[in-house]
Amino acid sequence: MQYPKIPLAQTIIQLCKAKNVQHIVISPGSRNAPITLGFSNDDFFTCYSIVDERCAAFFALGIAQQIQKPVAVVCSSGSALLNYYPAVAEAYYSHIPLVVLSADRPKHLIGIGDGQTINQQDVYKNHILYTANLSSQMDAEFKNRDEDEPAIFKNIENKLERLLGRKQELQQENETEINKALNKALSKRGPVHINMPFHEPLYELTDTLIVNPKVIGFEKRPSKIDDFIYNQCLDAWNSSAKKMVLVGVNPPNAVEQKWLDELVKDNSVIVFTETTSNIHNPGFFNSIDTMIASLDEEDFKALQPDILLTFGGLIVSKKIKDYLRTYQPKEHWHIDRDYANDTFFCLEKHIETTPNNFFETFLPQITHFVKSDYKATWEAVKNHRKEKHSEYLTTIPFSDFQAFETLFKSLPRGIVLQLGNSSTIRYAQLFDIHKSIQVFCNRGTSGIDGSTSTAIGCAVSNTKQTVFITGDLSFFYDSNALWNNYIPANFRIVIINNQGGGIFRILPGNTDSENFENFFETKHDLTAKHLASMYGFQYVTASNAIQVKNKLKDFYSESEKPKILEIFTPRTVNDEVLLNYFKFVK
Amino acid sequence: MQYPKIPLAQTIIQLCKAKNVQHIVISPGSRNAPITLGFSNDDFFTCYSIVDERCAAFFALGIAQQIQKPVAVVCSSGSALLNYYPAVAEAYYSHIPLVVLSADRPKHLIGIGDGQTINQQDVYKNHILYTANLSSQMDAEFKNRDEDEPAIFKNIENKLERLLGRKQELQQENETEINKALNKALSKRGPVHINMPFHEPLYELTDTLIVNPKVIGFEKRPSKIDDFIYNQCLDAWNSSAKKMVLVGVNPPNAVEQKWLDELVKDNSVIVFTETTSNIHNPGFFNSIDTMIASLDEEDFKALQPDILLTFGGLIVSKKIKDYLRTYQPKEHWHIDRDYANDTFFCLEKHIETTPNNFFETFLPQITHFVKSDYKATWEAVKNHRKEKHSEYLTTIPFSDFQAFETLFKSLPRGIVLQLGNSSTIRYAQLFDIHKSIQVFCNRGTSGIDGSTSTAIGCAVSNTKQTVFITGDLSFFYDSNALWNNYIPANFRIVIINNQGGGIFRILPGNTDSENFENFFETKHDLTAKHLASMYGFQYVTASNAIQVKNKLKDFYSESEKPKILEIFTPRTVNDEVLLNYFKFVK
Repeated sequence: MQYPKIPLAQTIIQLCKAKNVQHIVISPGSRNAPITLGFSNDDFFTCYSIVDERCAAFFALGIAQQIQKPVAVVCSSGSALLNYYPAVAEAYYSHIPLVVLSADRPKHLIGIGDGQTINQQDVYKNHILYTANLSSQMDAEFKNRDEDEPAIFKNIENKLERLLGRKQELQQENETEINKALNKALSKRGPVHINMPFHEPLYELTDTLIVNPKVIGFEKRPSKIDDFIYNQCLDAWNSSAKKMVLVGVNPPNAVEQKWLDELVKDNSVIVFTETTSNIHNPGFFNSIDTMIASLDEEDFKALQPDILLTFGGLIVSKKIKDYLRTYQPKEHWHIDRDYANDTFFCLEKHIETTPNNFFETFLPQITHFVKSDYKATWEAVKNHRKEKHSEYLTTIPFSDFQAFETLFKSLPRGIVLQLGNSSTIRYAQLFDIHKSIQVFCNRGTSGIDGSTSTAIGCAVSNTKQTVFITGDLSFFYDSNALWNNYIPANFRIVIINNQGGGIFRILPGNTDSENFENFFETKHDLTAKHLASMYGFQYVTASNAIQVKNKLKDFYSESEKPKILEIFTPRTVNDEVLLNYFKFVK
Repeated sequence: MQYPKIPLAQTIIQLCKAKNVQHIVISPGSRNAPITLGFSNDDFFTCYSIVDERCAAFFALGIAQQIQKPVAVVCSSGSALLNYYPAVAEAYYSHIPLVVLSADRPKHLIGIGDGQTINQQDVYKNHILYTANLSSQMDAEFKNRDEDEPAIFKNIENKLERLLGRKQELQQENETEINKALNKALSKRGPVHINMPFHEPLYELTDTLIVNPKVIGFEKRPSKIDDFIYNQCLDAWNSSAKKMVLVGVNPPNAVEQKWLDELVKDNSVIVFTETTSNIHNPGFFNSIDTMIASLDEEDFKALQPDILLTFGGLIVSKKIKDYLRTYQPKEHWHIDRDYANDTFFCLEKHIETTPNNFFETFLPQITHFVKSDYKATWEAVKNHRKEKHSEYLTTIPFSDFQAFETLFKSLPRGIVLQLGNSSTIRYAQLFDIHKSIQVFCNRGTSGIDGSTSTAIGCAVSNTKQTVFITGDLSFFYDSNALWNNYIPANFRIVIINNQGGGIFRILPGNTDSENFENFFETKHDLTAKHLASMYGFQYVTASNAIQVKNKLKDFYSESEKPKILEIFTPRTVNDEVLLNYFKFVK
C-alpha cells in the first residue's frame, strides 16, 4: 500500500482508522492531496467525492445520523471549509459526530497574501466541540537537506538534533490533539475540527508507514444517577396527578418499547410525541399542534402539568413551546447523558443518563399509579380531534394539506423518511406516520439548507429505501445535492411545490402586496424537471388529488433510476386550508 | 410611508440611508421581517430578493465591487448567515464593503433549544472588520403594558422610569454600534456584521418614524506620507538600476494613465501587470508566467530587482511569487492606504497612501533616470516570447489553451469581464485582453464558489455588458446563482467545460489512476443545458475550433435572453498543451 509521505497526513489517517472513522467525504483540492491520497489508497475507508463542500458536509451528516458514528469531511484550504459551516452548526445542535479535516498552509504562509488562504484556526468557534489546530513539521524541507546537503548537517549536528527534537515534539502534540478531537466527537456526539497545515510537495507517496501514533482512549463518564435524585423524582412523580412527557428528536430504537408501554398505563401521564421522536404507542398524543391549537384559557389551565419530563432533541412544535412557557409546569426534568436545554425557562433537573437507563431504574419503583383523570380528559379531546380531522379532509380542496395527507398515507412500511424543514416538518406533525417508518429531519438549526444532501447521505448508508419529502424552496436551495454519484436507485424525492415559501402566507404579514410576494414568499415558477434530467432522475408530476394518488401507486417500486415526484399545489389556497383546519378541529 | 414598528429596525434603516447604503439584498425569513418590510417600503433603497444566502452574498459583493460602496445583505436567524460566510471572507481579503444584517432572537431565547437559533454573535470573528452585537429593547412589551395596563405603571412609576432609561441607553448603544460598523465598512473597505435581535411581533407597521438616530461621521485618516520616507524612497530609487513594479488586483481607473506612462519611460524599471490589475501600457509586461516560466538560474539572477514596488491586491501568478521569494529584492515597498502583505518576506516599506498620491509626489522628483539595460534586456525576452506564443498557437490542437485564446480575442471592446477562479484566471494571464475591457476576479480567497453570483451582481449594477468566463466545476458549484430575477439580457456566460477539474492534471499528482479521476479531477459528464432551460438562458455549444469561432460571432449581440456558450474541450489533451507551451516559448 502507498502512503502520503507527509507524517502528519499518515498520522491523521492512522488515527481515523484506530477510532473507526470509516466514511470519508472528500472535496477536490490540492492542499488536501496528502490525506486524499492516503484515504483513497486505503481499503479500510469508504471514500466519497463531492465537489460542493456545502453539500458534502450535509451528505456526511446524513451518513453520521444513520450510523451514529463519526464521519469525516476533507477539504482544501481557503473558503472551502466555510462552505461546511451550515452542516457544522446543524451537527452541533443535533449532536451528530462530524469530523472536519481541513487542509491549510503552513503558518508562515498565512496572512501574507497567498492564494486560497484564510484564517482557518478556530473558524467554527461558536459551534464546535473541539478544534485541533495542528502544526506543520516542514519535514519535506528536512528530507531535502538531509539527502542533498549532508555536509551541512555534519557541520551543524547540534542544530539538527534540536530540529529533530522539535519535530518529535510537534508530532506528539499533533497526535494528542487529533486524539482529543476524535474522542470528543465520539464521547459528546458533535462536530470537531482538525486543521492540518501541509507543505509542498503535496503529492509524494511512499511504501512505508513512518508513524505509529499513540491511540488515546477516553473514559465514558458513568451515567448512573444519584439515588437522592431518583428519590426526589419518585416523590414528586408519586404525588403529582398531572405529568406530561414530551419527546423531541430521537434516533429510532432509542428507548425500549416496554418502558414506553409502561408509561401509557399510568392515567396521570400523557405522552406528547413529535414526528421526529421515533417512538410510538397508540396511547401517545402524536399531533401536538392539532391537540392544542384550538384550546381556550380554561383548557390550557387544565392541561398544565405538574411535572414535565422531556427527552430527545429539539422540539418542532412552536405551539407547545409557547404554551409551556406560559403555563409552566412546577418542574421540568430533561433526560440526556450530555445536554439539557432550558426550553421552557423552568428546567429543574438535568437527569444525566439515557432515557432507557432512567426508565429502567425509575419505572419499576412506581408501585402505585396516582389517581388522575388527566389522561382520560385529554384522550377524549384527542379522539374528538381525530374525528374532526377526518371530517375536515372530506371538505377541503386540493392543497398542501390534502397532498401531505395522501403522501404520508402512501408511504411503504419500513422505509426511512427524511423531511425538509419549514412547511414539510410542520405538516408532518399533523398526520399519522406508520410506526415502522423511521423519521429524520435536520432540527438542529432547522435550516432549509442541506436537507436533500442529508437525505442522500442517509440513503447511501442505508439498505432500507429512503424517501425525502421537501418544499420547493428547500429543494432548489440544495439543488447541488443531486450532483452526487452515489444516489441509490430506490431513493425517492417528493417535492410539494407551492411556488414559493408557502409558510409565509400563514404568518401574520400582509400577504397581498407585491413586496410580500417578492421578499417573503419569493414566488417563482420553477420546477424540478430540468434538474431531474440533468442528474438522471425519473420525473413525474401531479397537480390534483387524483393525479397524486395515481402517481404514488408505483412510485416507490423498484426502478433503474431514483425518482422525483413533484406535486404542484395552489399557492393562494394552502394557507387558508391550514388555518381553517385548526379552527375546524376544535 | 410605513415603517416597521420596532425602533431597532427603524434605526438600522435610517442609518443605512444616512450612510448611503442603497442596495439591499434580502433573503426570505420571518425573524428579519422588520427590516425587510422597512427596506422594501422605502423607495430610497433598491432591494433584491435572493433565496440562497450563499448566492445572495456573492451577488451583493458583485454590486459592491462595481459601485465601490457598501452593499447590505439581510437574512433571518439561524444557519442563514453561515451561508454568507464564503462571501464575507472574499470581501475581507478583497477589501470590498459588505454589510451583513442578520436578524437574531432576543438573548433570552438563545441556547435554550429554540428553532433557527444559533450563536450568531461574532460568528465571522476571523474575517470581519467589525461586529456590532446589538441588543433587543423588548419595546413591544413596553408598549403593550403602557396601553393595556396604565394603572400598573402608575404604581411603579420609578420602575417605569428606570426601564425607559435603560431603553434609551440601549438605543444609544445600538446607534453607536451601527455607526461604528458602517463607518468601518466605508473607511477600511471590507465586511462588517450587524447582528440584530428582534422580538415578536415582527410584522407590525406604523406610519410614524419614532427614532432619529445620531449619525456619527468618521475621520478619513490623512494619507500624506512623511517627507523622510519619500526621500528615502527617492535615494534608493535613484541609485538602483533594477526596479520591478508588480501590480495585483485594481479596480479600473485606480491609477492615472500619466503616471503609468511615466514609469515606462524609465529604462531601469519594468512593470509586471496581472490581468486583474486593470492598468495598461504597451511597455508593460502583462504575461508574467509566459515571461518567467522557462527562465534558468542565470536569467533569474539577472531579473532579480533591487527594488520591488507593488500596489493593488493579491497576486495571481504563483510563478512570480515563488520567484521573488527565492530571488528577493533588496527592498519591497507596497503602496496602499490601509493594507500591506509581506508576500515575499522582505517588505521594507508600507507606503500608506494611494498609488496616485504616491506617484504624484514621487515621480516628478525623479529628474534623471538611472542608466540601465534592465528594461531593454527583458523587453527582448518579451518580444521573443510573443513571437513564440504566436507560433505555438499554429501548432496546437483544439484545447483549453486554444479556446481561451479565441475567446479573449473575441471579446467586444468596453465590456466588463468577470473571470472564474482556478484554470480560468490562470489562462487569462497568458493572453492579451484589450485595454478597454475591465477585468474582475474574486481573488480574495480565490475560491471556485460564488463567481457566477458575483458576475451577476456586477451585471446588474452596470450599464456595460458583463461577460463571465468560467470553468465547469466553478459554474456547477454556483448553479444557484442563476436563480435570480435580475439577470440582464445582455449578460453572457462562457463555460470552458473540460469535464472536471482540469487544473489538477497540471499538478504533479499521478493522473492515470481511478482515484485521481474520482477525488482530484472529479470527472463528470454534466452540461449546462438543463440549467439554461431552467433559468431562461439561450444556450449554445461548441466542441472544436471552427464551432467556437462561429458561435462567438453573434454571441455578444443584443438578445431577449441572457446567453450561455458552453465550449467542450478534450479533457486529457489540455494539460499537455499548457505544459508544452511553457517549454515552447523559451
